[in-house]
Amino acid sequence: MARVSQEHLDARRRQILDGAALCFARNGFHATSMQDVLKEADLSAGAVYRYFRGKDELIAAIVAEVLGEVRAAFEEATRQSPPPPPDALVASVLGHTLEARGYLSVDGEPAFPRLIVTVWTEIVRNEELAEVLREGYGAVRAAWTKVVEAYQEAGMMRADLPADDVARTMIATVQGFIVQQSLFGPVPVEVLRNGLRALMSMGQPSGGS
Amino acid sequence: MARVSQEHLDARRRQILDGAALCFARNGFHATSMQDVLKEADLSAGAVYRYFRGKDELIAAIVAEVLGEVRAAFEEATRQSPPPPPDALVASVLGHTLEARGYLSVDGEPAFPRLIVTVWTEIVRNEELAEVLREGYGAVRAAWTKVVEAYQEAGMMRADLPADDVARTMIATVQGFIVQQSLFGPVPVEVLRNGLRALMSMGQPSGGS
Repeated sequence: MARVSQEHLDARRRQILDGAALCFARNGFHATSMQDVLKEADLSAGAVYRYFRGKDELIAAIVAEVLGEVRAAFEEATRQSPPPPPDALVASVLGHTLEARGYLSVDGEPAFPRLIVTVWTEIVRNEELAEVLREGYGAVRAAWTKVVEAYQEAGMMRADLPADDVARTMIATVQGFIVQQSLFGPVPVEVLRNGLRALMSMGQPSGGS
Repeated sequence: MARVSQEHLDARRRQILDGAALCFARNGFHATSMQDVLKEADLSAGAVYRYFRGKDELIAAIVAEVLGEVRAAFEEATRQSPPPPPDALVASVLGHTLEARGYLSVDGEPAFPRLIVTVWTEIVRNEELAEVLREGYGAVRAAWTKVVEAYQEAGMMRADLPADDVARTMIATVQGFIVQQSLFGPVPVEVLRNGLRALMSMGQPSGGS
């Protein structure tokens, strides 16, 4: 049997996942068939099924990959102590993630935001996907909580509010920003950075750590 | 022909919209048939089609209604000058909106967040719905921009960043919070309020209006 290089296997896998991502972003998960994915990736059924047994495995692989990238970008961005402030951190991680998939577009717009919103809808009816997403969300939330605790310990943020609440809020800003892009088209990450920066300037008289 | 009271008409309309909302939240828009809606609302086809010609009209009516409620809650909450700070404003408007639909549940969880995420997915393939959503989003964004300008004029927020960027960011926090509820179940609005409050305490040395 001929040996196939790891590079070749990785490139093939990438081709399949990108094809599936485009189909899901364009038509949603339910309206996409494996036939559509084969056509989009320009591969035979044999070539694809060697890697993935069906749509469920495809979407789970896409989600796991994106979450892994988010975690890596987050860890990279928080290596310094204290970590960068929320506006810079969010812009860096989100910018990196959007850029990594920037080459995928549907109807002339980035496919990534639509893909993500499609995943969120599908989760309700797919327990395996729900598990992948719960685990990834939990990991990102735990990482954010540590960052918030570092802000609080450094006296950068009032310390009498639960760090986990702040973590959820920071993740919400990113999720909501992705929603807006999927609905109304691309927006530079600087918009979110500016919004957070302005919010951070609203010191309350009753605040302070 | 017997006269039917406006109250009766309104109650019937409510019954249909709630039935459709439950179906869409439970199974998504595509997998829901008008037959499912009739069954959920416990009404005959004749009774339903007198109000709505099909699923497209149903989902557009649901979205218009929700956006109307959000706008009303927002206007109510911003009647004072200067307006309440973002943490209080978001908690009040979101709390009001979630409560208004609190009686609708699917699989023992609030149906509203899932319904909203389903709408976002559907918009890509439904131009009429896209138009309703664009208009509603534009109105909420314009209202938020005015509030942000009031913060800036009152010296509560640094004034050198675009008010529109802050408006988009505030809306993103709410959208993301709804995403989290649809994915991982209900969370009290106080979580988002605390997160925003903590963020607002991060005065930057380079800040100030």
